[in-house]
Amino acid sequence: MNDSYLNFVNSPFGARVARSLGLPKPEVLRRYRADEPEFGGLVAIGAGREPHLLDSLADLVASIGVTSVAHESAGLWMPLAHRHGLLTGRFEPAESGSAARVGALIFDASGIDDSSQMEPLHAFFHDTLRSLAKCGRIVVLGRPPEACASPRQWTAQRALEGLARSLGKEARRGITANLVYVGEGAEHGMEATLRFFLSPRSAYVSGQVVRIAADGLHGVANRVAVTDAGGNTASPFDWNLPLANRRAVVTGAARGIGASIASVLAAQGAHVIGIDIPSARDALEATMRQLNGTALAFDIAAPEAPAQIAAALDDHGVDIVVHNAGITKDKTIAKMTGGAWQSVIDINLCAQERIDDALLAAGILRDGGRIVGVSSISGIAGNPGQTNYATSKAGVIGRVQSMAPLLRPRGITINAVAPGFIETQMTAMMPLTFREAGRRMNSLGQGGLPVDVAQTIAWLAHPGSAGISGQVVRVCGQSLIGA
Amino acid sequence: MNDSYLNFVNSPFGARVARSLGLPKPEVLRRYRADEPEFGGLVAIGAGREPHLLDSLADLVASIGVTSVAHESAGLWMPLAHRHGLLTGRFEPAESGSAARVGALIFDASGIDDSSQMEPLHAFFHDTLRSLAKCGRIVVLGRPPEACASPRQWTAQRALEGLARSLGKEARRGITANLVYVGEGAEHGMEATLRFFLSPRSAYVSGQVVRIAADGLHGVANRVAVTDAGGNTASPFDWNLPLANRRAVVTGAARGIGASIASVLAAQGAHVIGIDIPSARDALEATMRQLNGTALAFDIAAPEAPAQIAAALDDHGVDIVVHNAGITKDKTIAKMTGGAWQSVIDINLCAQERIDDALLAAGILRDGGRIVGVSSISGIAGNPGQTNYATSKAGVIGRVQSMAPLLRPRGITINAVAPGFIETQMTAMMPLTFREAGRRMNSLGQGGLPVDVAQTIAWLAHPGSAGISGQVVRVCGQSLIGA
Repeated sequence: MNDSYLNFVNSPFGARVARSLGLPKPEVLRRYRADEPEFGGLVAIGAGREPHLLDSLADLVASIGVTSVAHESAGLWMPLAHRHGLLTGRFEPAESGSAARVGALIFDASGIDDSSQMEPLHAFFHDTLRSLAKCGRIVVLGRPPEACASPRQWTAQRALEGLARSLGKEARRGITANLVYVGEGAEHGMEATLRFFLSPRSAYVSGQVVRIAADGLHGVANRVAVTDAGGNTASPFDWNLPLANRRAVVTGAARGIGASIASVLAAQGAHVIGIDIPSARDALEATMRQLNGTALAFDIAAPEAPAQIAAALDDHGVDIVVHNAGITKDKTIAKMTGGAWQSVIDINLCAQERIDDALLAAGILRDGGRIVGVSSISGIAGNPGQTNYATSKAGVIGRVQSMAPLLRPRGITINAVAPGFIETQMTAMMPLTFREAGRRMNSLGQGGLPVDVAQTIAWLAHPGSAGISGQVVRVCGQSLIGA
Repeated sequence: MNDSYLNFVNSPFGARVARSLGLPKPEVLRRYRADEPEFGGLVAIGAGREPHLLDSLADLVASIGVTSVAHESAGLWMPLAHRHGLLTGRFEPAESGSAARVGALIFDASGIDDSSQMEPLHAFFHDTLRSLAKCGRIVVLGRPPEACASPRQWTAQRALEGLARSLGKEARRGITANLVYVGEGAEHGMEATLRFFLSPRSAYVSGQVVRIAADGLHGVANRVAVTDAGGNTASPFDWNLPLANRRAVVTGAARGIGASIASVLAAQGAHVIGIDIPSARDALEATMRQLNGTALAFDIAAPEAPAQIAAALDDHGVDIVVHNAGITKDKTIAKMTGGAWQSVIDINLCAQERIDDALLAAGILRDGGRIVGVSSISGIAGNPGQTNYATSKAGVIGRVQSMAPLLRPRGITINAVAPGFIETQMTAMMPLTFREAGRRMNSLGQGGLPVDVAQTIAWLAHPGSAGISGQVVRVCGQSLIGA
């Protein structure tokens, strides 16, 4: 659970050695700390023709309290920012040799409706990328292609994927690049997502495409913004404690990624009910004690588990369900026993289905709830020796895609995260060459940490993420590996 | 254009060296040759509960003239095959040490409607994979998840992706594995696709997922099977010359992949109209002379090009349009000029849009036509130094997704192929380490050839591929790289 190469090349001596030998030097990623400001530095704004999201962006910039600078492609930004009472300036490239001054690059491409109009994207990133600081952020905003009125617009919006993913691979230095498609009418539902992608909380999330739909934003329990008597909008939740008064179930919570998920959800205000198998009871109880949570020790794969969970939650209901529990039993299929196949499918996939169905049937999962399943890069790309695991994790993707439309009327979202190489006890036991390949074959040049998965789940569980459902977000540092 | 390592390790001496040093030994892929039988060896059939596609499979087995053997998971196959008048037997695992006897493994998973029912998949591949010959074929058949009636069924069908992709990575020895989702009502539209995936024509296509929809099969020009006076079904085309009487436009046809596309389409009976820039006129005319085709030398990016093409095709119309012409101008975005950005987007993407729109507006592309755009793995995954190219190639994907529903009423399909590492003059000029990484980082351990892209396009252009539209098929040997 220790990337000694990363530590070495970032020590004063190691950096000298790496430089003289021409070795890669992955950046030590900046991660969220409660005692450090979450947002800082300048945000440079660019835009294509007739951008639709600048107003909402101005709200965001005001809300997170950063200073913006306008690239020449975003001529509308200066007057608009002034109307919003924001300090703003014009983007000036850093002089060569001077420190990079920009913390984030945001381009509003929502107005581009033909592939012949894409030059401003080049102009913006051409001019600004070298001014972006280490661990800086790139966010490209567009419209969901499949909702576009014309094939030309759909094509141009879909083309943004190629750009955002290339920028993520090109930028290096701990920089992430992500693409957010904001549906018409969802403009005021993008703040939680942009906060996540601009924050150190998303340190290991890069090369991802997320869609925010308007139709999830209507349910009462999901309202992101309410209007007070004076006509001002106010959030119905505290950005620092967004999960206050929410109850969250996390399976496999005794240790590792599950314990980290429980801890992050608790730090954001949730009461956590941790579940793990009886043999992990002591670790589970210790973890839950620290978080003032509740420990439930039983086997989620047992036939009686769904009823047990439902009974334990019945009095108060639950708002957030995180299906983290999972096992691996790796073998090539020619050597894999029927038992190894079936138990992996059953615990990683069937158990999620049975538990959700029980909670939904009994009305225990409340309106406006959140379900997050843990998938895997293996479920996306397949993996030799993991036919059982990859099948189960691909099934988790089918699960969130199939359930999302059915849960929408109740304001419940269901999404999956797909971790790549995460530093855990499991990866620490891998053979050295596999471990090193896994760590380095991504745009950030290192493995992720359990907290990176946990922060991504907390964002999806956020009350402000109501417009995101049926999606898969990889937590993989933009791994090369994919489908 | 010469993989000397592949040749070396497959020479008698090289094989000994490789064995003693533990070096990987990629298989020399079997490719289609007109003078060798296209199909051969036993086909082993497996199935999950209540399979829907066995009847159509029996038609296929009869049509391609192979012998089938039934795995115990496919108890229905024996009586059904007998009813179809097929010789068939029971699958028996090869004795260890004896030669693998099975040429293809086909599993009909269309009846699986819950993730708890997936054990037959394990049983079948567990029992059969070691009996599969070098360059053998794995095809998993299912139902399109998004068309499934219940979330449980959707989930189980979606899980098949994880299995098929893992099998592709596990099998090695030149074996490909692909997943075909056959929509309800499209059972009789799957023959062209299964022929392709079982044939040496698909040598470098692995790890892919293809959907066959019923709604494309209704147009008169697309009818795959017609019923004769005796009530027997007959194909309205010759399987050996399926593109007879079709006219095909191929851009960038003077050399390389484009010339190979032209050649394969011509070999299947099409009259090819090759387009390339005036500076390549001699090569273009030589290529077209060989194929009895027509050469049109002009720049597709010029404003007058769509009208020129329309005028040249007007008398006879056209059935197949292949947008192969493309350029690269690689630089990191900070160093990329506006001209390099714009010319790549314009030639690789905007020109396709302008030409298609001109041909469609003037009615020159006939009902039942086929459009195929050449995308790229860079358009799927992004690539450093290729922001312009990746943007254009991601746009090609948006193009086929957006146009497909609009063209469906006329029976026109539009799809994209996304080549991975293909051995061309361009890749021959890459630095050695990049070239070797590109060649080896896929399940087949080698680069593809231009003919692999060409054969894939010919399959999509086939009259029997009417149910396939709006899709992207990678020709990449199941590259590790993806999104």
